[in-house]
Amino acid sequence: MTDAIVIREVGPRDGLQAEAPVPVEDRVRLIEALAAAGLREIEAVSFVSPKAVPSMASPGEVIASVAKADGVRYLGLVPNVRGAQLAVEAGVDALTFTASASAAYNEKNVKMSIEESIEELAGIRAAAGALEIDAVISCAFGSPYEGDIRPERVGLLGDRLLDAGATALSMADTTGMATPRRVRELVAEVGPAVGLHLHETRGTALVNAYAAMELGVRRFDTSVGGLGGSPFAAGAAGNLATEDLVHLCDDLGVVTGVSLDLLLEASALVAAIVGHPVPSRIAAAGPRSRRAS
Amino acid sequence: MTDAIVIREVGPRDGLQAEAPVPVEDRVRLIEALAAAGLREIEAVSFVSPKAVPSMASPGEVIASVAKADGVRYLGLVPNVRGAQLAVEAGVDALTFTASASAAYNEKNVKMSIEESIEELAGIRAAAGALEIDAVISCAFGSPYEGDIRPERVGLLGDRLLDAGATALSMADTTGMATPRRVRELVAEVGPAVGLHLHETRGTALVNAYAAMELGVRRFDTSVGGLGGSPFAAGAAGNLATEDLVHLCDDLGVVTGVSLDLLLEASALVAAIVGHPVPSRIAAAGPRSRRAS
Repeated sequence: MTDAIVIREVGPRDGLQAEAPVPVEDRVRLIEALAAAGLREIEAVSFVSPKAVPSMASPGEVIASVAKADGVRYLGLVPNVRGAQLAVEAGVDALTFTASASAAYNEKNVKMSIEESIEELAGIRAAAGALEIDAVISCAFGSPYEGDIRPERVGLLGDRLLDAGATALSMADTTGMATPRRVRELVAEVGPAVGLHLHETRGTALVNAYAAMELGVRRFDTSVGGLGGSPFAAGAAGNLATEDLVHLCDDLGVVTGVSLDLLLEASALVAAIVGHPVPSRIAAAGPRSRRAS
Repeated sequence: MTDAIVIREVGPRDGLQAEAPVPVEDRVRLIEALAAAGLREIEAVSFVSPKAVPSMASPGEVIASVAKADGVRYLGLVPNVRGAQLAVEAGVDALTFTASASAAYNEKNVKMSIEESIEELAGIRAAAGALEIDAVISCAFGSPYEGDIRPERVGLLGDRLLDAGATALSMADTTGMATPRRVRELVAEVGPAVGLHLHETRGTALVNAYAAMELGVRRFDTSVGGLGGSPFAAGAAGNLATEDLVHLCDDLGVVTGVSLDLLLEASALVAAIVGHPVPSRIAAAGPRSRRAS
């Protein structure tokens, strides 16, 4: 339980994606603040169509502008081969790619069948040279269309994504259907070497992360401030907040390499950038070490 | 882990206490809706000064007006001997009483030293006849004044409260300082036969409840909708939401006796009564069984 974990910070991508567009220089400042706080894996940009997702425009400019910190990997999400080509040109350190365990969700999200997503990944693999590619399986714990999705099916999809060129897998609770039971069932099937990407749709992200750490899972996606989710329900369905997980881990003696104090500065920065409070309650209340004044 | 738990619903007291006063008939409707949902322990009223806490005025009228359901106990919080006398006259089924493990917090909350609180409980015991009294130890996991409070000290206070006439103990995370580690340390000291009263100040109530259930704790205080906490930070620091715990337990196969569907109706009722959305994300997003329409 107390082995170190790796946190992949997805705030600049999954977090800001759900917000009104902010200037490139603010996105760069945020990424630099997160690296300064000790985060070593930062999903910084997304190579999607700026027409489809205006908040993720100019990923190449963001990557070019960031003052790179030693030992930090700056990742880009790519939806397709064209995105992978742009990501390679931009000089990202690794890629993420999403396919869904839910056929209906995949169709809705990326307008592809699951088979087409697997084929797309093979093309991305060819375009990506030696870059690592983490395949994120969305709706891994269930979908609002099909309900629970059997762990065996998720595991099979994971195998096929690895065959198609992914170098690692993450399991995403895209719509808040994960529970400690579902985490246990899925980890029993796919093993603890996967990453987990948890959302707060039902306020269960932290308990799911805790249950996963008990099972040996050691990689987590989180978003500074808990930003993320639907732009139409701001704050209600964000990612697991980075500060919430770091606060828990600090207390449990689980090393994250992240400074909570500096992270809370980055959280305050992102709140200022997006112009509203972030959902994280650690951000609101401060760490448990905070004393009454 | 899968043994049944007992939920004490504190929404009509701890939840509504933090809100602007609502009519007695609304409080009665809420209590009846909670009993209909299957809750068997309901902290319905508080016998505090209506000048100090206007939202808790007329506890006798509330108790007299509730259509009593079979097998349900309607509890009253009493701060002192006078409150206990009124509670006995009103015909409540059992009492709760709060003393703090934090001297500074006790002074601030009830204007007594911890010694004076213990003496007050002895007087309440004498006034309460055969009624059971659950002594709730606030700041059991730490206080914003003293920081962490040693489990041995909390255990000692518990022993003294039992000596003074309490029939059971609950450990309250009044200011959101509990963590799974602190829960483990305290349960190791006081045993798993205590109740837990958890707050969402730092978004940790559910993970703390989960960690406690793993340790054998089987009694929890929760508030419908997650209402509670400070009236000056509505929603930010409420109690563990009853629907959040029931949703988790349903998924884990832990029997609560509560119907989540009926509970969500009570949650919608309390949102209508207080005139704003409740903090619970299960209330907002619905159970994980909810499908896209």
